[in-house]
Amino acid sequence: MAGKLWKGRFREATHQMVESFTASIRFDQRLYKYDIEGSIAHCRMLVRQKLKKDEEADVLIQALGEILREIEHGLFTFEDSQEDVHMAIEQRLIEKVGEVGGKLHTGRSRNDQIALDIRLFLKEEIHSTDQDVRELQRSLVAQAKANLDLVMPGFTHLQHAQPVLFSHHLMAYYEMFRRDRLRLQSCLERVNVSPLGSAALAGTSLPIDRTLTAELLGFPAVSRNSIDAVSDRDFVIEFTAAAALIMMHLSRMSEELILWSSSEFGYVELAEAFCTGSSIMPQKKNPDIPELVRGKSGRVYGHLMSLLTMMKGLPLAYNRDLQEDKEPLFDTIDTVRQSLMIMARLWEHLSVNRERLEEMATAGYTMATDVAEYLVLRGMPFRQAHGTVGRMVQYCLEKGKELQELTMDEFNSFTKLIAKDIFSILDAKHSVDSRRAIGSTSLKQVEEAIALAEGELTT
Amino acid sequence: MAGKLWKGRFREATHQMVESFTASIRFDQRLYKYDIEGSIAHCRMLVRQKLKKDEEADVLIQALGEILREIEHGLFTFEDSQEDVHMAIEQRLIEKVGEVGGKLHTGRSRNDQIALDIRLFLKEEIHSTDQDVRELQRSLVAQAKANLDLVMPGFTHLQHAQPVLFSHHLMAYYEMFRRDRLRLQSCLERVNVSPLGSAALAGTSLPIDRTLTAELLGFPAVSRNSIDAVSDRDFVIEFTAAAALIMMHLSRMSEELILWSSSEFGYVELAEAFCTGSSIMPQKKNPDIPELVRGKSGRVYGHLMSLLTMMKGLPLAYNRDLQEDKEPLFDTIDTVRQSLMIMARLWEHLSVNRERLEEMATAGYTMATDVAEYLVLRGMPFRQAHGTVGRMVQYCLEKGKELQELTMDEFNSFTKLIAKDIFSILDAKHSVDSRRAIGSTSLKQVEEAIALAEGELTT
Amino acid sequence: MAGKLWKGRFREATHQMVESFTASIRFDQRLYKYDIEGSIAHCRMLVRQKLKKDEEADVLIQALGEILREIEHGLFTFEDSQEDVHMAIEQRLIEKVGEVGGKLHTGRSRNDQIALDIRLFLKEEIHSTDQDVRELQRSLVAQAKANLDLVMPGFTHLQHAQPVLFSHHLMAYYEMFRRDRLRLQSCLERVNVSPLGSAALAGTSLPIDRTLTAELLGFPAVSRNSIDAVSDRDFVIEFTAAAALIMMHLSRMSEELILWSSSEFGYVELAEAFCTGSSIMPQKKNPDIPELVRGKSGRVYGHLMSLLTMMKGLPLAYNRDLQEDKEPLFDTIDTVRQSLMIMARLWEHLSVNRERLEEMATAGYTMATDVAEYLVLRGMPFRQAHGTVGRMVQYCLEKGKELQELTMDEFNSFTKLIAKDIFSILDAKHSVDSRRAIGSTSLKQVEEAIALAEGELTT
Amino acid sequence: MAGKLWKGRFREATHQMVESFTASIRFDQRLYKYDIEGSIAHCRMLVRQKLKKDEEADVLIQALGEILREIEHGLFTFEDSQEDVHMAIEQRLIEKVGEVGGKLHTGRSRNDQIALDIRLFLKEEIHSTDQDVRELQRSLVAQAKANLDLVMPGFTHLQHAQPVLFSHHLMAYYEMFRRDRLRLQSCLERVNVSPLGSAALAGTSLPIDRTLTAELLGFPAVSRNSIDAVSDRDFVIEFTAAAALIMMHLSRMSEELILWSSSEFGYVELAEAFCTGSSIMPQKKNPDIPELVRGKSGRVYGHLMSLLTMMKGLPLAYNRDLQEDKEPLFDTIDTVRQSLMIMARLWEHLSVNRERLEEMATAGYTMATDVAEYLVLRGMPFRQAHGTVGRMVQYCLEKGKELQELTMDEFNSFTKLIAKDIFSILDAKHSVDSRRAIGSTSLKQVEEAIALAEGELTT
Repeated sequence: MAGKLWKGRFREATHQMVESFTASIRFDQRLYKYDIEGSIAHCRMLVRQKLKKDEEADVLIQALGEILREIEHGLFTFEDSQEDVHMAIEQRLIEKVGEVGGKLHTGRSRNDQIALDIRLFLKEEIHSTDQDVRELQRSLVAQAKANLDLVMPGFTHLQHAQPVLFSHHLMAYYEMFRRDRLRLQSCLERVNVSPLGSAALAGTSLPIDRTLTAELLGFPAVSRNSIDAVSDRDFVIEFTAAAALIMMHLSRMSEELILWSSSEFGYVELAEAFCTGSSIMPQKKNPDIPELVRGKSGRVYGHLMSLLTMMKGLPLAYNRDLQEDKEPLFDTIDTVRQSLMIMARLWEHLSVNRERLEEMATAGYTMATDVAEYLVLRGMPFRQAHGTVGRMVQYCLEKGKELQELTMDEFNSFTKLIAKDIFSILDAKHSVDSRRAIGSTSLKQVEEAIALAEGELTT
Repeated sequence: MAGKLWKGRFREATHQMVESFTASIRFDQRLYKYDIEGSIAHCRMLVRQKLKKDEEADVLIQALGEILREIEHGLFTFEDSQEDVHMAIEQRLIEKVGEVGGKLHTGRSRNDQIALDIRLFLKEEIHSTDQDVRELQRSLVAQAKANLDLVMPGFTHLQHAQPVLFSHHLMAYYEMFRRDRLRLQSCLERVNVSPLGSAALAGTSLPIDRTLTAELLGFPAVSRNSIDAVSDRDFVIEFTAAAALIMMHLSRMSEELILWSSSEFGYVELAEAFCTGSSIMPQKKNPDIPELVRGKSGRVYGHLMSLLTMMKGLPLAYNRDLQEDKEPLFDTIDTVRQSLMIMARLWEHLSVNRERLEEMATAGYTMATDVAEYLVLRGMPFRQAHGTVGRMVQYCLEKGKELQELTMDEFNSFTKLIAKDIFSILDAKHSVDSRRAIGSTSLKQVEEAIALAEGELTT
Repeated sequence: MAGKLWKGRFREATHQMVESFTASIRFDQRLYKYDIEGSIAHCRMLVRQKLKKDEEADVLIQALGEILREIEHGLFTFEDSQEDVHMAIEQRLIEKVGEVGGKLHTGRSRNDQIALDIRLFLKEEIHSTDQDVRELQRSLVAQAKANLDLVMPGFTHLQHAQPVLFSHHLMAYYEMFRRDRLRLQSCLERVNVSPLGSAALAGTSLPIDRTLTAELLGFPAVSRNSIDAVSDRDFVIEFTAAAALIMMHLSRMSEELILWSSSEFGYVELAEAFCTGSSIMPQKKNPDIPELVRGKSGRVYGHLMSLLTMMKGLPLAYNRDLQEDKEPLFDTIDTVRQSLMIMARLWEHLSVNRERLEEMATAGYTMATDVAEYLVLRGMPFRQAHGTVGRMVQYCLEKGKELQELTMDEFNSFTKLIAKDIFSILDAKHSVDSRRAIGSTSLKQVEEAIALAEGELTT
Repeated sequence: MAGKLWKGRFREATHQMVESFTASIRFDQRLYKYDIEGSIAHCRMLVRQKLKKDEEADVLIQALGEILREIEHGLFTFEDSQEDVHMAIEQRLIEKVGEVGGKLHTGRSRNDQIALDIRLFLKEEIHSTDQDVRELQRSLVAQAKANLDLVMPGFTHLQHAQPVLFSHHLMAYYEMFRRDRLRLQSCLERVNVSPLGSAALAGTSLPIDRTLTAELLGFPAVSRNSIDAVSDRDFVIEFTAAAALIMMHLSRMSEELILWSSSEFGYVELAEAFCTGSSIMPQKKNPDIPELVRGKSGRVYGHLMSLLTMMKGLPLAYNRDLQEDKEPLFDTIDTVRQSLMIMARLWEHLSVNRERLEEMATAGYTMATDVAEYLVLRGMPFRQAHGTVGRMVQYCLEKGKELQELTMDEFNSFTKLIAKDIFSILDAKHSVDSRRAIGSTSLKQVEEAIALAEGELTT
């Protein structure tokens, strides 16, 4: 009890079990840097507002700097009885500088302080996550360029659909991650708002200057309602939702990498350094990385659900339930960033089995649509063309042939509109190159997409 | 089987149970307007690109217009065997205009068509949802203005904390919904992209013009990768996540309305027209609306989880799993919009028990922080002031007094720094008005917040 | 307002929008049969307890029977203004029999009535779901028997691991569904409890007999606390959690069916009657059923989350939020049952590509563990054996050979412990048959598992 | 690489980042006790089956015992490069005893080993959780007994409904937790199955005895399919779902404790030792414990969603995704157990404000149903009685009276059926005692419920 800075009105000491149950210090100590940064800005503002003397501020700011270094050098012991990172640092401050340390908390509450700390932290992490997404995009673009004109079977329903460029397939992931980056930027706008000065929930009667602290801490805006400011965790949820989408994209990519490295597909080979073996089966080389990444999507989905549930039905303003925001947020950040980083490396060390992809590009009647479109260009309504080619495929299935193996006579038994030039059509490269509208799979379109991407990747 | 437009290569008819299990027509018929709108734009483009004759297009466009009217007048019967809204409309078109109807689907697949339909639909619904949010904000602002200077106890941990203005409390919700509107706008940027022309996944070899259809349909941009475009449902999830936040905010507001209309709180009275009774207890008047709205938060959270799960681990490109996107999306929109609309009405018909709120504003030592800040302004370090006032509260609890009931002598037994002017401090209105920083609860700050809000509500 | 049976204390009519927002009749009408069944039992009890005269009861029971038939024959119009199925039926009853109809609701509230209805409904649905699971198990066992000794590659990490029997693989799913059936039975114990007589929350002062109504309705037990009984939805959540596990199992099975019917795997072929085609690609035959089932796992997960969220933090006893229990429950039941039924049919019409499975059974060094175990039986510690075979595999990879293609000299260059009998080991059937412990993949074990299953499937 | 026990076929060392990303040792070290226990049983079986010599087994078992002690005394350093608890222990074993240590893994894979470890661990934790639930039930029963005949307002829709006994209200929670205990027991049946001997997925060709290891480890049954056994995590999900229901119940209880300790309710007072203060507001005494418990419901819901997502769509058998099962499981157990334990203590130290509860018991027309039932017993149909009393309440509202304050004349102006004895009815204790059916709120029923509970609490 001795140490509790709020003990004034209490006669009983906190129950030991309560101390351990309520303490957030085991996880919120991660915010120490931002807590100190916020305190220094708060301190400077108090001086400017004549709420603190210059020399007092000097003492406090110097001591806060020392505490920062103590923590960074592992010389600081966090303990449950300190409750949280704010109290731990304030206590240490008072230890170091005596009574004047008690002046730091003027015009401030832990309610606005923790909101500030999370926002400062998240601003930085959003920036880093954005960079991690970009690194993965870079790996994808590099693989796309290295295999620019490689054809492969495009899939729908995991069935061969039409030939596409391998590079076009990779650039589909580039697009997903591009949207992820846009979402991170959108989210940042709502993170980048200073709650400091909202105090417990009502603001303070002391003449503070919120705009000044916001400026010192690099916030372009201050929050507009003190009750909202201390009870708002929208920005944590919005970030986690954006992170869930990133993980969803990674889970799709992981699924494909796992499929592609199976014996049956044989499309790619993961580097040994990115696989592990089996304790019992000596031949195994397992795609653990994409499997784990795929599994970790559940983790982030779970955190999102956790946060939404936590906020459900809470009356205003701050409630202690909000303390449960940090662990899901921290783990979301760690999970997403590590997954992005390792996937970027994985793609760098991936071997592509070009022969296999090319061979499969035309297997499974992937040219059927080209034949139908050929008929359309010769005047047959599309629905009729679709039906005609459907019957050709049925015929091929019975004969055990691919479309490109049919003779002219066989073609003509279905329709006289088909002429010799059909054979130049029945080629994966031709098919791919004929799809020239914006965003389609022709080489030219993919080259343009890559050029555009390379421009975006510089920021 | 007769009717299946893709039947060419099939020898067996679809199993009846399969038809019913796979049909999406029961729910996707809701998209009919957008499907027809998209087809008309596609048709116009085909003419411009010489892929269709003028007179054919005229026939098709006129027939599509007729089908639209048939549906709107309930003259159109949707059936499971039609599979989906696209096939139903295409079949009807062929019925009406014969073989030329089969030309509509040129250079298009259901994969890009459904992506287009959902995007057109969601653009409109985002706009409407935004308007619904605004209406609720208007009701809140109106109540705030009607009770501008009414004091109430501000809460943290559902314990009395400090006096705040009732209007300030309502404006906290205004802020939450303001962020919701910003999120809807952000989301719209990613919805507002035309996927048309991506065809099945690879684009088409026919010389279509994607920019033209995008323009005709009011899209400022076209999608950049065809494989991504047909398998992307990010925008559905992003919208649902934004909707989950709206529901979360509504659940908090609902919780407060339920608390406030309890016998114990007695803060507000809901209009009878917005309550229902009990089948057994004759006296009951229940706050069903906020209870249902609170409960419906679960519904939207569930849909979000459903969509995220559905997308997890799907290989590219389109998979039939994606069909499961529509029911959660539709129900999310209906739930959010209805909840917003009814809450706006509820607030309009709410009676505020002003006396009760004022009476409770200073109950429970809500002035304690004011006393501590009084001491700080007289030079006592905040931590010491906090301790001193804590002991006063402990003393009051023992004596069964409120702080404002202490005598000068009693005050001075704790500290000599307190003078007569303390009594002018111990007043809820004074307390509220002393909190003057941006976003704090003083009358002036709330008036400014309302003025700002009124400006925003015009858009 | 006219029609509201609880209108006594109200002066204002219910707002139209409120009527529509709060009405549950659009979905709870599904419970009509159970509602009437419950009312008849309640009525009989009231007579026995002298709370109603015999002749009154006769009139009521006959009229309830008529209403049942009216509903079944579609002669009954449910309307929003009736609020819910209970009120709709009670109103119709009063219409039919006059004032005596008003005696039915004696000693009962909608709070215990709805709890009763859902429990009666769910009892029946659990039984039906159990039967649906069993049907799918039967299809699996039939396929297992039809392919009893067929070998295939067993997978871990989607990499070839060891040969297993195809029948053993199918029986793994049998086991998952066996646990699902056990879970349904466990859940049923908690569903099978009568809440009737708990009234609004406190019980009733009328001398009712709860045991009698429980008996009449086939409940082995009555609920033990009236406050709990009207606010308990544990059983709905527990069922939905069990359903989520069923869907999870189905999603795994679906994933495998999708993989296995890809061109790359080519392990099975789905019947055409269970597939659909593409609107653009004439060759497509898509595995829509397993894709949709996989996608629908999200739906049930979402409902589970919805229900858990809905119940979070609700004070006792009944709150209107609970009305949100029915739609997720109903859709969960429909989704799970339809998915089970169609998967049972799908397996019946599935063709297995036996040659392909046999060929792949030994591809990818699946014999490596057999070689290691061979060495262990000759005295080499397992870890050393593992390492030795690992090096053989590395050698094979370099030489482009399978293990079974090595010569005796090559084997002996790794260890002299290998003798000629190694070649009899390197055979998939031998490998499979050597795994004879309970639950392993030898033919004998699988035959026993099937025999056991067939016994269980009779119940 | 040196240390990797599966390194045989690998030429490249594992990438450092991969080692860190894939290592589970930071969390699965928690399973060390069960891992060693399982290894000892496996070892004994190998001896019995002549797969190992007696003296070898002695050496191994002794060394395993030493390792157990090393870990318990903190003398063992777990490192990422050891991958997981199994490898860490096996490596240490080989360090201690040399080559013979490599014989332990005979006929076993990490796939069945980890399934075994989790099952052994969870068996014990289910037992402990069950005891924790029981302790909380004990606290509730003790409070119920201490306040046996105390009346309070029963609530529906958070509106006063009818008087109930405070003890009856507490026993409602007893019932919820009783069901939780039943669910834990049901779940245990599916946990309590030995997977050992399933090896990687196919079983082993070595002549092991699965029944013997199951017996040695206290399992009543062995798993029936090896492929299922290594890829089954149903039991983890089923436990987490049961835990989610416990947390849901705790969230409801927490909500009530928070409401009841508000100034407005004033029903109970939490002990100071179970509350904390504010850093800014000197008067605050916050109900942090129930707030945190309420918030933690989200945490467990999130873990449930995480696990379900992780398993969605995984092909058989083991996939590395499964590694993601442990952290959610561990945190679920810790969260549930700590929440139960602290809530048990909280109830022990809770003060009940008896006067306040009694005073509120009849406020808000809670007697209205009694009056209606009084009329029914005098022959009025219930619906008519409901309407009559509804009008009385409306009259009272206008006059500002409670029902018990009406005069005989006023009563008779509504119906002549009311006689003088009505006044003896209008008393909370009378009301409560008149509700005598099983599970109702009369003193006798509650006493019986408590007696039943006390019997159950001995087990």
